[in-house]
Amino acid sequence: MNVFEAVRTRRSIRKYLEKPVERDKLLRVLEAARLAPSAVNRQPWDFIVVTDPEVKRKLGAAYPRDWFVNAPVIIVACANPAKAWTRKDGEEYWKVDVAIAMQNLVLAAWEEGLGTCWIGAFDEQEVKKVLGIPREIRVVAMTPIGYPAEEKGPVVDRKPLEEIVHYEHW
Amino acid sequence: MNVFEAVRTRRSIRKYLEKPVERDKLLRVLEAARLAPSAVNRQPWDFIVVTDPEVKRKLGAAYPRDWFVNAPVIIVACANPAKAWTRKDGEEYWKVDVAIAMQNLVLAAWEEGLGTCWIGAFDEQEVKKVLGIPREIRVVAMTPIGYPAEEKGPVVDRKPLEEIVHYEHW
Repeated sequence: MNVFEAVRTRRSIRKYLEKPVERDKLLRVLEAARLAPSAVNRQPWDFIVVTDPEVKRKLGAAYPRDWFVNAPVIIVACANPAKAWTRKDGEEYWKVDVAIAMQNLVLAAWEEGLGTCWIGAFDEQEVKKVLGIPREIRVVAMTPIGYPAEEKGPVVDRKPLEEIVHYEHW
Repeated sequence: MNVFEAVRTRRSIRKYLEKPVERDKLLRVLEAARLAPSAVNRQPWDFIVVTDPEVKRKLGAAYPRDWFVNAPVIIVACANPAKAWTRKDGEEYWKVDVAIAMQNLVLAAWEEGLGTCWIGAFDEQEVKKVLGIPREIRVVAMTPIGYPAEEKGPVVDRKPLEEIVHYEHW
């Protein structure tokens, strides 16, 4: 699947088959995250792969949705702000770095026939408690991964290009 | 080019041919950004496309590099934090949203044979002044776009998977 097709057809999947995700596919998807660019190549990221039903159940306390808890795999994308590059005016880039890696993962998963769903609305402290994530680490996003049990057409609910693109100046 | 191949071979390009970027390719690349997911589908992004040599020259004040200023196209990716979703604990997601869209753009560009380079180390106030960007808007990243005038092999300088992936818990 080419890049544009992946971008155009990728949808947030909130229903998954019980079918497990093959290890080689999972590794390939993680590899796509690993290869991402980051500010000054600091790679300030860690990914936690959760497949144990008991751990997934506990994670449900941070994001109580059945489709999330029952997905075959959950990926938790973390940042280490202390390892990340910061602009000299103090602007932090760890969210950007981890988002780039996660979007690589999401698109690579889609190419493998696997659905994902960017999740931000979780209880971060609860995620950290359940997974034993150190105090200095931040959880940027989570996604379930699995074979989609729902079919969706290409993305349509976006603003038109004319609304979001400016030429030469704002 | 499939997604994984794009992820694996994409490199930051800092030398561009003088050859202009065709309008249909540029629109396709912007379309890839437009189609990105964002928290609660707020799409809190704007993209400024700069091709005018005089405007590019002025942008050089914010990021003084010849390869940047002389690239055929510069894209400036902006966020509107007031339009973006914020988690109930106050955590902001506008950097994540714009980073997702920008990475879509970067990978779609690579597929079109176009190089890019994520830039974060710019003087944000200077960019805003040169492009007339409103006070409430933030500049998240910039990238030049153009045909590469340098050849680079696939990504190699990344931490191994074992260093960044944890299973079941941290």
